[in-house]
Amino acid sequence: MLKEVNRRAQLDALFHPRSLAMIGATRAMTKWGFIVLARIINDGYAGKIFPVNPKEKTILGLQVYPSILDVPEPVDLAVITTPAAVVPEVITQCGKKGVPAAVVITSGFSETGLEGAALEKQVVALARSSGMVLVGPNTMGIYSAPAQLTCLMAPVMPMPGRTACIAQSGNVGTHMLFIGYQRGLGFHKFVSSGNEGDLAFDDYLEYFGADPEIHSIVAYLEGLDPGNRFLHVAKSVSRHKPIIVLKGGRTAAGAVAAASHTGALAGSVAIYNGLFRQTGVIQAETNKEVVELARALESQPLPKGSSVGILTRGGGWGVITADACAEAGLTVAKLAPETIAQFDRLLPPYWSRGNPVDLVAVLSSKMYVDCLKILLADPGVDGVLALGANVEAQADNVFQALQRIEKVPRAEIERVKAQSLQEARDFVNAIVELIEQGGKPVLLVGRWVASKEWDTRLQMLGEPEEAAKVMAKMVEYAEYLRG
Amino acid sequence: MLKEVNRRAQLDALFHPRSLAMIGATRAMTKWGFIVLARIINDGYAGKIFPVNPKEKTILGLQVYPSILDVPEPVDLAVITTPAAVVPEVITQCGKKGVPAAVVITSGFSETGLEGAALEKQVVALARSSGMVLVGPNTMGIYSAPAQLTCLMAPVMPMPGRTACIAQSGNVGTHMLFIGYQRGLGFHKFVSSGNEGDLAFDDYLEYFGADPEIHSIVAYLEGLDPGNRFLHVAKSVSRHKPIIVLKGGRTAAGAVAAASHTGALAGSVAIYNGLFRQTGVIQAETNKEVVELARALESQPLPKGSSVGILTRGGGWGVITADACAEAGLTVAKLAPETIAQFDRLLPPYWSRGNPVDLVAVLSSKMYVDCLKILLADPGVDGVLALGANVEAQADNVFQALQRIEKVPRAEIERVKAQSLQEARDFVNAIVELIEQGGKPVLLVGRWVASKEWDTRLQMLGEPEEAAKVMAKMVEYAEYLRG
Repeated sequence: MLKEVNRRAQLDALFHPRSLAMIGATRAMTKWGFIVLARIINDGYAGKIFPVNPKEKTILGLQVYPSILDVPEPVDLAVITTPAAVVPEVITQCGKKGVPAAVVITSGFSETGLEGAALEKQVVALARSSGMVLVGPNTMGIYSAPAQLTCLMAPVMPMPGRTACIAQSGNVGTHMLFIGYQRGLGFHKFVSSGNEGDLAFDDYLEYFGADPEIHSIVAYLEGLDPGNRFLHVAKSVSRHKPIIVLKGGRTAAGAVAAASHTGALAGSVAIYNGLFRQTGVIQAETNKEVVELARALESQPLPKGSSVGILTRGGGWGVITADACAEAGLTVAKLAPETIAQFDRLLPPYWSRGNPVDLVAVLSSKMYVDCLKILLADPGVDGVLALGANVEAQADNVFQALQRIEKVPRAEIERVKAQSLQEARDFVNAIVELIEQGGKPVLLVGRWVASKEWDTRLQMLGEPEEAAKVMAKMVEYAEYLRG
Repeated sequence: MLKEVNRRAQLDALFHPRSLAMIGATRAMTKWGFIVLARIINDGYAGKIFPVNPKEKTILGLQVYPSILDVPEPVDLAVITTPAAVVPEVITQCGKKGVPAAVVITSGFSETGLEGAALEKQVVALARSSGMVLVGPNTMGIYSAPAQLTCLMAPVMPMPGRTACIAQSGNVGTHMLFIGYQRGLGFHKFVSSGNEGDLAFDDYLEYFGADPEIHSIVAYLEGLDPGNRFLHVAKSVSRHKPIIVLKGGRTAAGAVAAASHTGALAGSVAIYNGLFRQTGVIQAETNKEVVELARALESQPLPKGSSVGILTRGGGWGVITADACAEAGLTVAKLAPETIAQFDRLLPPYWSRGNPVDLVAVLSSKMYVDCLKILLADPGVDGVLALGANVEAQADNVFQALQRIEKVPRAEIERVKAQSLQEARDFVNAIVELIEQGGKPVLLVGRWVASKEWDTRLQMLGEPEEAAKVMAKMVEYAEYLRG
């Protein structure tokens, strides 16, 4: 019955559409047919947009067409928000029009029961019979940076970048986009896979895996349909790009909830853990960890082992970080005598004389870089957690005091401020250089206090516990690739 | 040798000084004697300030005195940043002047070796012989909201509030203040206890424990000196206010680092765990968790058991949260038939019909509150994790689209915006009311998108995993108090 289709071409139409029709477009500000359309326009989609609604003439300044068949030009993508009952008719018309791909936002299908499941089956069969691929139904939408397309229900504006995201929950997936925006992780493509009536998790994984512009793939996964190609696809993709998965339903309570959400099978925790181990998929514990891991893998070389150096500006931070490393399964490296001798020459005699390397009250960023260099050069150190790398904050606060009191001339304040900014830039550049030369990862822990331009070459985490977990998972992935 | 002193009165002078002398004040902008003084002035200290420096006439617009003995008025607090070698002389002069308390920021004491330890012993003996209490030496300073005193080296501006903090690491402690600022936790008093040459952890715990304005005490703890009164003090304090501790040196690697930092004894992990269990001290895993726990305990009633209800706007979030609850040791409550019947009347027929309660695509905040009310009323539910409680973000993004496109009249946008803001306020008030009436804690997971005024009555966390861990520790504390 089903035509053999060239899925690759339809997926290209889906994520790089030259034109789209919004079927179910409306002027009602609280409806998805308005909200999604407004976001597509607002976020700068570069192709043509054809709203479809038999009752309207114009919406948001665009001409409206009574049906997709009235659109005078070719349409690459149909975005559908009509009521569920009319979706079969809409899909039939899209087929006639020769639309290669559709995003079915409409809900009320298999997630609602048997009747909905029958309707979904009908819709998928209609689509397949005309060689059309479907996202959803019951999807929160897609995002594509190269197409400047933000076709999303959720009020999140992704940052363009090199990560792709597959989400078996629109809410969880768009939250990854949101955290990415906060933490400097850019996205290339995103899909909320919805009910996966047609296109499924492994289809997206394969497509994103083959895209050379995509550096890593992150995902929220609850379950895979019988007959899926995950094992084969993931194994092949993870050899050349990291796949980071947050698995929903890791516990009995979670599995029960998943069964009610996507119908994923309970009791399969061990199976998935085995599958991930076998395919080199990195399993994250939280949404935020997914994002931090992707950023770290995008900006840092992989560690060659599990021994870490810890550089800290305070003894307490060193203790917390050593605890966190041990709890994450990392080894706090024993420093070579030569490394200790080098620090002896640089630091006051009462320095910690071991790892963590406590810089005590050293404020100079040059000294910080010098010490990082020594630590990275130790042959027993596979990577470094570098704490308190937020040079600029110190200065800013002092300026505030100076300006309010106004006893120090403004020109002097401006001079010191500019100097401090330059020092911060030099600091960042010096660390980037050390990473490039040494080929060892450095995860910074601290606060960015100025321009985001620096973020892409470094990975800065907020807490040492996060950095330790991220480093431990980088170690695991590196071990998988070597083994 | 040591005079028996009234520590309470000296501690009052320390945290509520009517006047202070800054000994070691300087015009050199990169030195602590300038930075700390600038912060004290800038952050609005209400008492008199007397900078002391034999070589200067004025600093930051204030008259400078050659020595503390030249100050013409009584001095409650001496803040000392001079070189270590002259601290004994400074302390002797402070004693002559009758200063009851000093904050010794100066480092170079027991943390540097035997010679420094001897100097520290001398300084402490001098202070005690004149009935003076010391913070430090090697402290990052103190903060007191009622005195409007921010005597801190770190560039952090605490938010005034009802929590006290004791930190055996200035860096870790001031980071708690920073996270508190970000997450809406206000502080009443803070002390970086430094080397604890004189005043020690249990002294501060006892003092903060007796202060009725302080609601909870948070701490970073590496170790306690022999002969400490922690067991007795903590047991008594934790009956009426929560004590939340981040313990440094929980692992072998961390204990080694702690030995080098504060000299805390290694191998005592089990002892501390037992001590905390025995005294009802809540142990947190990260700095952030310390802050979130304090906020939750400040704003929420204690749960009567470990069964939680989960309210979610998305199935995936429900799954993640159920996993997180199970992993944190909570039970995902089985709902009573009557509860399910009530939801049946409100929600579409395909709702999850169990806990987590998935509101599916319900956007109305009234419906959200109605469902929360039903869930809280279930006798098997001891507390609720309520996800997706960020109503206002939705609207804001749509407004952005509308304004850029400018086809919708501004007045209409303003009207809808004001309505949405009012709805958000009503939403918050309704939840606060449900908590007050039901006496059960509700931890929200979502994003604040407007005014911070709402934060104090609710606890909103960023991630479900955080909320589950916080709820689990509230359950433990409640069990301790009952048992």
